[in-house]
Amino acid sequence: MTPVPDSTVPPVQQLQATLSAMPPVKAMGIELRGFSGDQLQLSAPLAANVNDKGNAFGGSLASAMTLAGWALVTLRLRQAGFEADVYVADSQIRYLAPVYDDLLATATALPGADWDEFLSTFGRRGRARIPVRAVIGEDASPAAELEGRFVAMARG
Amino acid sequence: MTPVPDSTVPPVQQLQATLSAMPPVKAMGIELRGFSGDQLQLSAPLAANVNDKGNAFGGSLASAMTLAGWALVTLRLRQAGFEADVYVADSQIRYLAPVYDDLLATATALPGADWDEFLSTFGRRGRARIPVRAVIGEDASPAAELEGRFVAMARG
Repeated sequence: MTPVPDSTVPPVQQLQATLSAMPPVKAMGIELRGFSGDQLQLSAPLAANVNDKGNAFGGSLASAMTLAGWALVTLRLRQAGFEADVYVADSQIRYLAPVYDDLLATATALPGADWDEFLSTFGRRGRARIPVRAVIGEDASPAAELEGRFVAMARG
Repeated sequence: MTPVPDSTVPPVQQLQATLSAMPPVKAMGIELRGFSGDQLQLSAPLAANVNDKGNAFGGSLASAMTLAGWALVTLRLRQAGFEADVYVADSQIRYLAPVYDDLLATATALPGADWDEFLSTFGRRGRARIPVRAVIGEDASPAAELEGRFVAMARG
């Protein structure tokens, strides 16, 4: 299902193309905003994600945070030269305040999680997992927060 | 934001209209399938919810289960004559197997949760919460499962 990435296209743009080809993600209007290696940000317009109360639909908040974590792990693997299928294994979400603005989701590894260990385990076993935190809004006072474990599996 | 329901339209159809007016829910193609009082089912076509691997996007699974819980609590309140704003407060999700079929989500109150107590608390205080379980697929061997707490607040 997944074509070999074109190495002339930057990884973030490649991933945006993958995301935009997924109907539910396209419908949400998800746009990758930045990837620093340790942090990934994406946004989505409120209008495409609004509920009957005029604020952001809880499912869209969950999706945006889950995608941010998924994109962080996927890009971190690509940065290290690995192509992997990345899945979310589980997540805990807290909804703390209604969101009346465009959605901004930020994902980082959980404190204590070690990217080097994750990547070396993946390289050795073709399978590794890492816990990720994602928030909607400001990290210090988020409107929603997710903690989830993501699993990477070698392709083929 | 929410018009007074037309009492000549059955509650499930009223709620379907509310859901279909929410852009992210419409994009997912969510359809309410049944409401027995204790259980609510909804479905969504795989095509509108597919990821880059040809199976259901994790965010869509989360959204479908969250919506099933939300619809169950909303309809149970309406059945008792209450109009309320219902929010998801938190949830835990486990993703157990990839989904290659249309999504079918089923929500019930968690074992031990008491609808009568929930409704009487809501009637008295204008606010109540109840824990809900939702699954994708068969309850005995679900492809994904959610446990979440839903809060109902009186309008106005």
